[in-house]
Amino acid sequence: MKRWLIENAILITMDPQRPVVNGWMAVEGTAIAAIGDGAAPEKEKRTAEETIDGRGHLFMPGLINTHGHAAMTLLRGLADDLNLQDWLQNHMWPMEAKFTGDDVYWGTSLAAAEMILSGTTTFVDMYDHMDRVAEVVRDSGLRASLTRGVIGLCPPDVQQAKLDNAVGFAKDWHGEADGRIQVMMSPHAPYTCPPDYIEKIVAAAHELGLPLHTHMSETEAEVEQNVRDYGVRPVEHLDRLGLFSRPALVAHAVHLTDEEIALLANRNVAVSHNPVSNLKLASGVARVPELLRAGVTVSLGTDGAASNNNLDLFEEIRMAALLHKGVSKVPTVVPAAEALRLGTSYGAKAIGLEGVTGMLKPGLKADFIAVSIEKAHFVPATDYVSHLVYAASGADVAHMWVDGRQLMRNRELLTLDVERIRREAQRCFERLRA
Amino acid sequence: MKRWLIENAILITMDPQRPVVNGWMAVEGTAIAAIGDGAAPEKEKRTAEETIDGRGHLFMPGLINTHGHAAMTLLRGLADDLNLQDWLQNHMWPMEAKFTGDDVYWGTSLAAAEMILSGTTTFVDMYDHMDRVAEVVRDSGLRASLTRGVIGLCPPDVQQAKLDNAVGFAKDWHGEADGRIQVMMSPHAPYTCPPDYIEKIVAAAHELGLPLHTHMSETEAEVEQNVRDYGVRPVEHLDRLGLFSRPALVAHAVHLTDEEIALLANRNVAVSHNPVSNLKLASGVARVPELLRAGVTVSLGTDGAASNNNLDLFEEIRMAALLHKGVSKVPTVVPAAEALRLGTSYGAKAIGLEGVTGMLKPGLKADFIAVSIEKAHFVPATDYVSHLVYAASGADVAHMWVDGRQLMRNRELLTLDVERIRREAQRCFERLRA
Repeated sequence: MKRWLIENAILITMDPQRPVVNGWMAVEGTAIAAIGDGAAPEKEKRTAEETIDGRGHLFMPGLINTHGHAAMTLLRGLADDLNLQDWLQNHMWPMEAKFTGDDVYWGTSLAAAEMILSGTTTFVDMYDHMDRVAEVVRDSGLRASLTRGVIGLCPPDVQQAKLDNAVGFAKDWHGEADGRIQVMMSPHAPYTCPPDYIEKIVAAAHELGLPLHTHMSETEAEVEQNVRDYGVRPVEHLDRLGLFSRPALVAHAVHLTDEEIALLANRNVAVSHNPVSNLKLASGVARVPELLRAGVTVSLGTDGAASNNNLDLFEEIRMAALLHKGVSKVPTVVPAAEALRLGTSYGAKAIGLEGVTGMLKPGLKADFIAVSIEKAHFVPATDYVSHLVYAASGADVAHMWVDGRQLMRNRELLTLDVERIRREAQRCFERLRA
Repeated sequence: MKRWLIENAILITMDPQRPVVNGWMAVEGTAIAAIGDGAAPEKEKRTAEETIDGRGHLFMPGLINTHGHAAMTLLRGLADDLNLQDWLQNHMWPMEAKFTGDDVYWGTSLAAAEMILSGTTTFVDMYDHMDRVAEVVRDSGLRASLTRGVIGLCPPDVQQAKLDNAVGFAKDWHGEADGRIQVMMSPHAPYTCPPDYIEKIVAAAHELGLPLHTHMSETEAEVEQNVRDYGVRPVEHLDRLGLFSRPALVAHAVHLTDEEIALLANRNVAVSHNPVSNLKLASGVARVPELLRAGVTVSLGTDGAASNNNLDLFEEIRMAALLHKGVSKVPTVVPAAEALRLGTSYGAKAIGLEGVTGMLKPGLKADFIAVSIEKAHFVPATDYVSHLVYAASGADVAHMWVDGRQLMRNRELLTLDVERIRREAQRCFERLRA
């Protein structure tokens, strides 16, 4: 296995034991082998097959996007500034109904390119035609947790076919691409899946030993509908259906009572906070300071590009740091270091990859990015964690490695043909719109 | 005067008569000479001394940042996530007290570099050592409205010296640099200037024929203090002192009653909305939908880099489009086109430059930028106004012209030595911190 070295580096490790290291990092094969302060030891230099001078960059774990629908990049900018039901029923769903496997392949490829260009090394994707998504993950070199999101508002045989499809996908792809692909099971949402269908999906997750992912309490209206239909709010409803009996990740979780927050904490349910999408769709502002205080693992997601409208997770990190201060009127909530954890180490924990990715630490996978600091907005050199959160953007990411393999060098993509992807995505969009 | 031509261009003009033009634009000297659809006429091609192929770019008016303290870039990242009074009294003010003219020159140069790199062609600056700020504007080629912000919590002779300094600056610099520099008069805020001092500054503005600028109602605490000290809220207080008897621009305006909004509209007072700074300092969320509905001219400011922490106005545009939807729970407020107007045409109006800059229109100054769209996050080509607002960042700006002169070409600064500026700004910061 190739062992190589980065010298003269500022490492923002996200490891609470040693958050910032001015020194060196050795990578062997797919993993981080060693990290140290100051100059690299002679032994490391002799062993290294290649040495990179880290000056002018910050090295940090790749970002982790814990909720999205990658292929929806094809619908970016198609319909903005509309009421949610109008947006969904008259614009998104009619277009999505036309999506073929080819559309999903190129839309996801566009998303993969955009994520690499903005520093995301691991992403969660809930969609359809998941085989084609998995192909993109395999070929792009990214790490992902993939899940066939199933909507159960259909006859029992169609429900069963969808569940079979999700189970088949899990059997085919969980652990594939050198372990870079993980699979979750996903009832789309409590308001789109009847209770007995959710129970079947939970049973399948138990059989397969997989985590569960779902949309939950994104809007006030769906919470009210849950109470009308089932007599309880969504957290209690899902808890009764067993959704939290497996490791679970819920997206949005905007509208929560104190009791619901306590129950999520008690059941070790992780939350994917999607602040930009929640603002754009006017869903509201999640109670992130309270969730964090209760000990809930909060991570960050972009949601689909149609409600964001980009996949730059640096923007979610900054939004998480800014929004909750302004809305709560407490300037000390979600400080910069915490916001950066939401986008890295907490993201890994939220999808069961704690100890695998999300930190720079010996033994963890070599999933990391180099952020160029030779830019006006990184001056002066006061506090690089602050600069990453409050001043940086995805465009500052120069290099990326995942599983020890370089995916981007000086903003050039090494595994994807971005010009072809842009062309094919445009072609897919034009066919869908026709 | 040189006449030159851009062909094959998508022009996002911000001109309500013809918002998007697929065609060409001719520039003569400092101004836009003509705009047309389709292919450029033969006569234009013959007359043009130079022709630029606009393919792969959107051309739009340069952004207008209507509130800031440019030299505060030197304090970027110095102290974040603190309570406002702690931040101001223990971190900002002690450092700022040490600022020399040299610090202001290099801090402002850093800000100018950052603004050019992110698409801002015109900025408002309220600070001290304004001669040095004016030098940066003159030499960088930017357009600016500059103002010596005076704090009146001092003995009468010091008050008078500050006012004399502000008047002297106005006499020396208003209309200089080929008219690119305008000057305003600025009492810092109602809570830092006694009423009689504000009246003196208003009188000076009348004598000089200049607009007025001030901070107003940024925090709830200062509104309460105003009521305690003067028996009325800040808008009525400033109205009584004559501040709105000249064209006026107030920064922040976060905490307003319906009556105050009506009074601002009635007096034609413009507002500089600073959403990122207001969130970061936990000041709250301004009532922008209500201000716009009342007919108030709302524009956008970054505020100083210490409370933002960058000067990328694309971020303010996106934040204005997102934040008010989420907080009001109405997804149709501040739609994309309106958000873009806040950062361009409304910005020009807010500082008395309507008909001068802020649109692409024959007769207006040639202040514009070219945004590269050959990027993943600009695909598919659905709606470029949406993409500029919801997907773009300052890093997408490739070229800039101000007053017909090119300031940036392919992200290379043509008037500023950014490497030297970064070095000098770092040196200034280290001396200040020592």
